Amino acid sequence: MTRIDGRKNNELRPVKFEVDYVEYPEGSVLVSFGKTKVLCNVTIEEGVPKWMAGAGKGWLTAEYAMLPRATQERTRRETTGPGARSQEIKRLIGRSLRMAVDLDKLGERTIVLDCDVIQADGGTRTAAITGGYTATALALLRLQKAGALDELPINSPIAAISVGIIDQEAMLDLCYVEDSRAEVDMNVVMNANGEFIELQGTGEHSGFSRSQLNDLLTLAEDGIQLLLQKQRDVLDDILRK
Amino acid sequence: MTRIDGRKNNELRPVKFEVDYVEYPEGSVLVSFGKTKVLCNVTIEEGVPKWMAGAGKGWLTAEYAMLPRATQERTRRETTGPGARSQEIKRLIGRSLRMAVDLDKLGERTIVLDCDVIQADGGTRTAAITGGYTATALALLRLQKAGALDELPINSPIAAISVGIIDQEAMLDLCYVEDSRAEVDMNVVMNANGEFIELQGTGEHSGFSRSQLNDLLTLAEDGIQLLLQKQRDVLDDILRK
Amino acid sequence: MTRIDGRKNNELRPVKFEVDYVEYPEGSVLVSFGKTKVLCNVTIEEGVPKWMAGAGKGWLTAEYAMLPRATQERTRRETTGPGARSQEIKRLIGRSLRMAVDLDKLGERTIVLDCDVIQADGGTRTAAITGGYTATALALLRLQKAGALDELPINSPIAAISVGIIDQEAMLDLCYVEDSRAEVDMNVVMNANGEFIELQGTGEHSGFSRSQLNDLLTLAEDGIQLLLQKQRDVLDDILRK
Amino acid sequence: MTRIDGRKNNELRPVKFEVDYVEYPEGSVLVSFGKTKVLCNVTIEEGVPKWMAGAGKGWLTAEYAMLPRATQERTRRETTGPGARSQEIKRLIGRSLRMAVDLDKLGERTIVLDCDVIQADGGTRTAAITGGYTATALALLRLQKAGALDELPINSPIAAISVGIIDQEAMLDLCYVEDSRAEVDMNVVMNANGEFIELQGTGEHSGFSRSQLNDLLTLAEDGIQLLLQKQRDVLDDILRK
Amino acid sequence: MTRIDGRKNNELRPVKFEVDYVEYPEGSVLVSFGKTKVLCNVTIEEGVPKWMAGAGKGWLTAEYAMLPRATQERTRRETTGPGARSQEIKRLIGRSLRMAVDLDKLGERTIVLDCDVIQADGGTRTAAITGGYTATALALLRLQKAGALDELPINSPIAAISVGIIDQEAMLDLCYVEDSRAEVDMNVVMNANGEFIELQGTGEHSGFSRSQLNDLLTLAEDGIQLLLQKQRDVLDDILRK
Amino acid sequence: MTRIDGRKNNELRPVKFEVDYVEYPEGSVLVSFGKTKVLCNVTIEEGVPKWMAGAGKGWLTAEYAMLPRATQERTRRETTGPGARSQEIKRLIGRSLRMAVDLDKLGERTIVLDCDVIQADGGTRTAAITGGYTATALALLRLQKAGALDELPINSPIAAISVGIIDQEAMLDLCYVEDSRAEVDMNVVMNANGEFIELQGTGEHSGFSRSQLNDLLTLAEDGIQLLLQKQRDVLDDILRK
Repeated sequence: MTRIDGRKNNELRPVKFEVDYVEYPEGSVLVSFGKTKVLCNVTIEEGVPKWMAGAGKGWLTAEYAMLPRATQERTRRETTGPGARSQEIKRLIGRSLRMAVDLDKLGERTIVLDCDVIQADGGTRTAAITGGYTATALALLRLQKAGALDELPINSPIAAISVGIIDQEAMLDLCYVEDSRAEVDMNVVMNANGEFIELQGTGEHSGFSRSQLNDLLTLAEDGIQLLLQKQRDVLDDILRK
Repeated sequence: MTRIDGRKNNELRPVKFEVDYVEYPEGSVLVSFGKTKVLCNVTIEEGVPKWMAGAGKGWLTAEYAMLPRATQERTRRETTGPGARSQEIKRLIGRSLRMAVDLDKLGERTIVLDCDVIQADGGTRTAAITGGYTATALALLRLQKAGALDELPINSPIAAISVGIIDQEAMLDLCYVEDSRAEVDMNVVMNANGEFIELQGTGEHSGFSRSQLNDLLTLAEDGIQLLLQKQRDVLDDILRK
Repeated sequence: MTRIDGRKNNELRPVKFEVDYVEYPEGSVLVSFGKTKVLCNVTIEEGVPKWMAGAGKGWLTAEYAMLPRATQERTRRETTGPGARSQEIKRLIGRSLRMAVDLDKLGERTIVLDCDVIQADGGTRTAAITGGYTATALALLRLQKAGALDELPINSPIAAISVGIIDQEAMLDLCYVEDSRAEVDMNVVMNANGEFIELQGTGEHSGFSRSQLNDLLTLAEDGIQLLLQKQRDVLDDILRK
Repeated sequence: MTRIDGRKNNELRPVKFEVDYVEYPEGSVLVSFGKTKVLCNVTIEEGVPKWMAGAGKGWLTAEYAMLPRATQERTRRETTGPGARSQEIKRLIGRSLRMAVDLDKLGERTIVLDCDVIQADGGTRTAAITGGYTATALALLRLQKAGALDELPINSPIAAISVGIIDQEAMLDLCYVEDSRAEVDMNVVMNANGEFIELQGTGEHSGFSRSQLNDLLTLAEDGIQLLLQKQRDVLDDILRK
Repeated sequence: MTRIDGRKNNELRPVKFEVDYVEYPEGSVLVSFGKTKVLCNVTIEEGVPKWMAGAGKGWLTAEYAMLPRATQERTRRETTGPGARSQEIKRLIGRSLRMAVDLDKLGERTIVLDCDVIQADGGTRTAAITGGYTATALALLRLQKAGALDELPINSPIAAISVGIIDQEAMLDLCYVEDSRAEVDMNVVMNANGEFIELQGTGEHSGFSRSQLNDLLTLAEDGIQLLLQKQRDVLDDILRK
Repeated sequence: MTRIDGRKNNELRPVKFEVDYVEYPEGSVLVSFGKTKVLCNVTIEEGVPKWMAGAGKGWLTAEYAMLPRATQERTRRETTGPGARSQEIKRLIGRSLRMAVDLDKLGERTIVLDCDVIQADGGTRTAAITGGYTATALALLRLQKAGALDELPINSPIAAISVGIIDQEAMLDLCYVEDSRAEVDMNVVMNANGEFIELQGTGEHSGFSRSQLNDLLTLAEDGIQLLLQKQRDVLDDILRK
């Protein structure tokens, strides 16, 4: 079977990181996976939320939203706070990034990661995690360069990708059209040690067997290796400047 | 290592289904997993939401809330709508149950499943799914008995359980104290065909390897088999009356 | 005239107090008046709201909510805060209980009373006050036993009941069917000194004369005597253990 | 004992009805009880709320709000909907007026009564009911005059007053200073047949005996007779023009 | 062309200031421009909002709302906070008044100006500014008289008026009927030095040329001179008492 | 005096229109004025809001929001609906664009213009109007090309710019630093006939004289001529393709 855009089942879409897309944030990356574009802006604030003040540890929180015309049909703005889907994604991004950052070494600072989807063609949450990590690492590298941190407060880099089963075949990095027909849809977040950080699999039209699960995980592991390499390249580039 | 309540790693807490706990709902089950108690009430309404009217199909939606003193410390009521955690759980329950019910055969009816946590000692969302399926099946069996349905609109029974890794050991059905120290926490929903419906794994303090994942899945599969058997027993009992 | 459930006009429904229904609250009572079941959970927190801090006095606040299927037809959750009816009841419960408790002797503590209706068959607010007093007294007795209070901070026990006029006859403790046809509906809260604490009478389909009012008050006085006696029995039982 | 403003215990404050204070409503009355001033505007709209459409009956709903500087200290605007106190009052006004108006004869129309407190010196809810009835009657008399109604859809005129116990003495029509020290506070709504429509008594600092209750009711009955007479005078005056 | 109420194009409606309309505020003025009536109540509170505390300067904030039957057709109450139009007006009033008051000389006090529209016949926002200045000046004059202020903290008195173009003619002080047909609508706020404070012009059905703009500004300047004189007369009167 | 970025007082910042920045909207323009970047996406929906259905006319509505890190310091998301400033801007954009578009010729369609600020360095509302017109014209030109419109429903192109007075000098197109120190700040919207559509001038630290106003208007007129020419060039370019 050929995929809608001619890719092989284990092939990522073209991935691009536009660094410093916005000038003001401590770290800013516009990440694209094919047509999916997510703007990841990192703010580092002194201080932490009240409930954890005084412990000498830092905090990281994420937000996620879509521009109304990120989608084919216009989506209404979430004017009464983030909807259920947005909140679920925001929590996933936050949990994942908190595993990547060493909050003890960060000191009493708060990292706020804003992920705004400019154009949505599937995989926005995994793009947000992958671009969000890059923006966060960038902000922390600069903070260290500026002498505010002795050590880089990173446990292990992370990246994320979606996988799914369409017509009984496991595929990597689903675009919107694929995602909407997938029987099974799974988002995988991993770190550079090859460990899983988050695993969220959903049977959309049918359940899935353990052997199908294994196929999906293998696809995801390979895709994430590539993403982690691309992140390293981008960060090296920046640091060399 | 002995578990806090003396159980073995692959042992469930005592599970109990109190059927017809409330008199008015079409199906009502107070399910307990040890000290965790969730009241699952099922309402069957004629008609479906506007956006799907006219298609001849049914719909199922779930709600999830905790009483303020379900927890050790009092939790404030969610007076501005369900919080992020509640909405995530409500969506998980809804998705899972919609896989269990054959919405085409249900006809233009809406099943509303209310899961209210009376006492919370870990695993409330998996208890809600397990008890919620039982209450739903009960309501549908009665609807069929009443002659309103030709065929029982059930694809495959489902049940759910939590598993986790504590001090590097995989354990089944975590209570609250275990859950709060777990390195990895995973919720698994399966159907009676041995397929996964939902899989949500989170590295809380560390990532987890593929081999650890396999241990967790094996524990979950065995636990869920037991739960499905208990559900069958309860429903048989009721129907025999 | 015979009442729908065969009771005499001056007869209460069977009243039951299930003590310690939930394990975590400082006081927990599941009270039933016939099919009406209200779970009353008491939390005692150190400290008082800001506006009264430093005066050495305590505070008591109540909340009241219904589970969606406490009623014959499902009622929507109050997701944007308590509705007008719930707030009115919550204020009534709070005012009544604050008259029962000696807030000066309580010290700078806050009692939070959560009343959650599990099943509603009329008289939920008076059941909440009657069960709520029992749960509060229980929590305070235990606090005293634990040595945290020199003296029991109770002015006078309270209980409450509804009365009404149906087809020109005064009746005690209306169930839902009676309540919905009553011409006059009245809720009465009294203390153990035989004094009124709250009196709320409403002509639903007609006004009522002073003589009808007197009949209703007499019925209420007698019913409340019985309830106060039952409360004493329950509390004595617990303390003896 | 002399009262703060020199009145006798059974004496009303000066009561004034300024008719047609605002030009646009179907009925508009600015009522004052001493310094308490409430603007009562009546709107009559064709049609009824959806839930009662088609039954040929009318509806009446009331709203109640205070201007921020109606009070000695500025009160914040209720920007997130009416607060608990306002809603309780709004419900009381609505229930009372629905007893005064014959909704069957009104036809499928909705009466909206807006009560806005311009200056508050105690007794605003009873002033709102008394002025609100006058504005409603005015609007209905004009509607009848205009030929839109065969018969005046009024069951029986109503009026309301507050009574209370201060230093063990029963007093009529409490001003703010009296109200805030009262041991018992009661609002009474009656119709022109001498029947009670609403009775809301609260022990603020102590309970009250049945004999004290009787004293309060006698005071209220006499005060309300005077108010009903004043209403008749005002309406006769207007109709004569 | 004759105007609907017989005025000349450069003629104001009858303007009236009823001082001390409400007894409790530090300054209270019921201002009318023809049928438009706005109640302007001024509260002076010690202290300033947190974000400006400690700077020794004062603050002024305004609120604006309409009673539901201020308008020909009933307008729903803004129960979820001020709507977009109300907020825009509230901001305009606040900005204008902050230019009139010398916040440095005011000291750490907050002036809250509540503008409530009792009856609306066009020009409510400019009436609110004109009446609001009067009430503010009154409150400050009394504060100075009471010895709490060395110097009157006023930069320059302000007043406001609306102008517009109807059938190509420039007119002063539009009433509602005129306003709703105007091609161009402009609100002008000026101080006693003849300077503009705010200028808000909108082409409603067509654009407007620079020469039309000049005609409108000349009308507004003359009208505002008259209003400033009336304000001086009212304040002199009060102070002489 | 030299301006902070070396511009002359009557000089615009570099203006750029990136057409089709997002792929899905009917018209999409990322407009920049120096560092200020606003993404203007146009959606054309069949049908109009209920209150105007059946009249055969179209409608246009605008939304305006800022990404949290569009600003130097992070701004919180407006999670409870647009704030007062955003709503004011949204209304200004909507009114201006409705003057540009011939709603009668549009037919029963709704144009939704979403203006999202990616980077904010002053003048975001005038950039939104200028870019928003371009995106709207683009969408309408394409709709006409596609045969859905006989005639282009445009009354007259519009553009907008800010002007202000700093240290007594009138300047065109203020950047953020200039804006925050300006004594007077004015936003001007004009059409291609040289008429004013909107004029909003505010004395921030002082009032302004009529002669100062004239200087500002002359600056604005010249700047807007340039912007209208740039818009024509961009649209010609696109159409030629």
